[in-house]
Amino acid sequence: MTYAVILAGGVGSRFWPFSRELEPKQFMKIIGETSLLQATVQRLKGLVEPRRVYIVTNNIYFYEVKAQVAKFGIPDENIILEPQGKNTAPAAGLCAKLISRIDKDAVLLVLPSDHYIKNTGNFKKTIKKAISCAGKDFLVTIGIKPSTASTGYGYIKSGAGKGGYIEVEKFLEKPDLSKAKKYLKDKRFFWNSGMFIWKASVFLEEVEKYLPGLYDSLRSINSVNDIPEIWPGIEPVSVDYGIMEHSKGIALIPADFYWTDLGSWEALAEIFPKDKKGNISNGDALNVDSHGVCVFARGNRLVSTIGVNNMVIADTPDALLVCDRGRAQDVKQLVERLKALKRKEHQVHLTERRPWGSFTVLQQGIGFKIKLIELASKKRLSLQRHKSRAEHWVVVSGVAKITSDGKVSFVRSNESVYIPKGRKHRLENPLRSPLKIVEVQTGAYLEEDDIERFEDDFKR
Amino acid sequence: MTYAVILAGGVGSRFWPFSRELEPKQFMKIIGETSLLQATVQRLKGLVEPRRVYIVTNNIYFYEVKAQVAKFGIPDENIILEPQGKNTAPAAGLCAKLISRIDKDAVLLVLPSDHYIKNTGNFKKTIKKAISCAGKDFLVTIGIKPSTASTGYGYIKSGAGKGGYIEVEKFLEKPDLSKAKKYLKDKRFFWNSGMFIWKASVFLEEVEKYLPGLYDSLRSINSVNDIPEIWPGIEPVSVDYGIMEHSKGIALIPADFYWTDLGSWEALAEIFPKDKKGNISNGDALNVDSHGVCVFARGNRLVSTIGVNNMVIADTPDALLVCDRGRAQDVKQLVERLKALKRKEHQVHLTERRPWGSFTVLQQGIGFKIKLIELASKKRLSLQRHKSRAEHWVVVSGVAKITSDGKVSFVRSNESVYIPKGRKHRLENPLRSPLKIVEVQTGAYLEEDDIERFEDDFKR
Repeated sequence: MTYAVILAGGVGSRFWPFSRELEPKQFMKIIGETSLLQATVQRLKGLVEPRRVYIVTNNIYFYEVKAQVAKFGIPDENIILEPQGKNTAPAAGLCAKLISRIDKDAVLLVLPSDHYIKNTGNFKKTIKKAISCAGKDFLVTIGIKPSTASTGYGYIKSGAGKGGYIEVEKFLEKPDLSKAKKYLKDKRFFWNSGMFIWKASVFLEEVEKYLPGLYDSLRSINSVNDIPEIWPGIEPVSVDYGIMEHSKGIALIPADFYWTDLGSWEALAEIFPKDKKGNISNGDALNVDSHGVCVFARGNRLVSTIGVNNMVIADTPDALLVCDRGRAQDVKQLVERLKALKRKEHQVHLTERRPWGSFTVLQQGIGFKIKLIELASKKRLSLQRHKSRAEHWVVVSGVAKITSDGKVSFVRSNESVYIPKGRKHRLENPLRSPLKIVEVQTGAYLEEDDIERFEDDFKR
Repeated sequence: MTYAVILAGGVGSRFWPFSRELEPKQFMKIIGETSLLQATVQRLKGLVEPRRVYIVTNNIYFYEVKAQVAKFGIPDENIILEPQGKNTAPAAGLCAKLISRIDKDAVLLVLPSDHYIKNTGNFKKTIKKAISCAGKDFLVTIGIKPSTASTGYGYIKSGAGKGGYIEVEKFLEKPDLSKAKKYLKDKRFFWNSGMFIWKASVFLEEVEKYLPGLYDSLRSINSVNDIPEIWPGIEPVSVDYGIMEHSKGIALIPADFYWTDLGSWEALAEIFPKDKKGNISNGDALNVDSHGVCVFARGNRLVSTIGVNNMVIADTPDALLVCDRGRAQDVKQLVERLKALKRKEHQVHLTERRPWGSFTVLQQGIGFKIKLIELASKKRLSLQRHKSRAEHWVVVSGVAKITSDGKVSFVRSNESVYIPKGRKHRLENPLRSPLKIVEVQTGAYLEEDDIERFEDDFKR
């Protein structure tokens, strides 16, 4: 049977300030209302049954993944949690190990969760070819015909074309520009898409051969319960570097669809429609005599430019980036600076997600903080108590089930309730429609760590 | 006696998005906690007594001016209100007329309210020379020694130096760059600062000579009560164009202080300190490999740049401007676009000022709107009623005196009150300390025009 293994643990920082440590690229809605992860799952329709779709991610993303894939019918136990990110080879190996215990002939589609693909029909055709090729015990990779001399991708040098696939001569790391230009002219070169198709058993044999340390670790993992103990000792290594650059049995299937790894704002700019002056206005933008300006505005604010050229302007409620398009790769460097400065704009958005929904700090001043709280259907916060703050809640949409000092009441839109400091309380959304509450906190100390939890649905 | 006439009616749009139609440049705090208007008043200390300081402004700015100059002891009746802006000559003529009725020998210092001056000591020395010169019946102008070939200023070509002043040959409008370069090299040329000193009687004679229409209109104004009737019929004209370009009796006093009219973001950039790469970080800015970037951030948000050169980035809560420094003059053009698009970002800030204080819409959604209301000491809103909305008020600092359905109560920090729709109510700050209230509105229609006023301290 065919299984999908979606790698969704990445902490990409190149879309900062849109992406944050706690909200990485794969969970972002780049175009429309579907996140990259959701689009990855959606593309599998007709190829892999939902119960055979596995998602490997970091512990901290569990509730996000769960919420995002709920509607596709993927069981919760298919979300495999890594305590630490160890790059792609351990994640792929782990899934090969776990799935081969259920189905020793399993064929795995190993797919990144944060790439962008157009033409799903052709994607499926390509994958079907790859599956058939994997049946012949190849490690199969999807190669992309280069359209530019990109220095942001790894390359694959192909050999002879065989019946249904192309031999692979060599995996090559990201080249410099002059090499990339040569590769572009030479028809033997492909971009490495990071999509792999192989039998679990074949992949594990290759791991044994080329990454014996990892193989040993995987031998000790017989169920997900073993992961937390074994994982810290594993060396991080990519599939490309650890396996593909060494393996002899690799086959390439050329992609027949548009693909980008969305590796930077510049790559994102490529897929958006532009006006006559080459400007992208994604959000509320107004350009005067500007050219090649890519505005991505989610800050609820007007972004205007005068006489600006070849710039990415990415605006969010708490951070703005103005970046020369030629420097889009250096966003990473900026994020490192933020880390070093111990700021928080690289970690979380102003609207912070929680397993039960989200909250946004609208304003804070001396002695008060105003939050908008959104509680998802049927979710509840922990039973909790605050030492230093009182809370006024005004329900602005939906119905809140409120437990205060053991008493339960239902508070409707345009009604309010007061939780004095020191009182045990709990907030719940008993309905299917979302619940919105304005919370006005008052007190001398108003940080998130003033919380004593007595019960919690999310084991915090 | 010497009187000051401060012209504070301008609707400058060149500092958009910091300046707005309802909050023009003269009321802005450019550096520190003093607005340009306040700095203008402050500079007069020791030159003109507060009760002889007059401020001409537009009707709509009355409460703003009143609040800003309260601490200087300028009487309210010295705030002269124009129903419409008519440029500088009518405003200067009006004050000359009104003041000469009180003091026929009055000497007037006519001063813009939105310029920036360093070295107040030298400013005062220069003005004293000018006053003495005006005593000899000259129209006296303060000339600035050009430091750059600016095309943003009018020029004055001077003639022979006399005892204590320089003769003026010609007033020249803003030149093109090649002329400006010539002027810069030629010691006879000065920038026109827009500061004028003259006897009221002498100026009125010149108005009679060169602007007889205006003179006729001024003859019909015997008190401020006559302004509303006469003003609409007056032709707008500047002092420079209407009088100075024609008058024969002009004297120039060279300024011995740093002056700029702050005519654009670029002019503002000139007066701020820069780092080694020529960047200005006024607000929360983080630059990576950027040069000559001027960040002015009042948006409570991080502004970051990568590889950006010679750019002004001006950020406010509801509008961002990214502008090439060479194009700073074109901000006006952008503001015109906003007007044409019937937007509101050129008119008001997200925090809207009112005679009683200010309010900020923190968030709005379907059926609700969250405002932070700040009420100044001893001020109160109108006695009012809303058809479509209910209001929840949570006091977060200060004490509110609330009248609801005729009953008065005092609501303290961490207490709340509910005003159902249709109820007559009034909010007042009875104390000296400011009052802050979070207002959560709920209802189907939540616009500002759902208000029925029964009593109002501000005649609305």
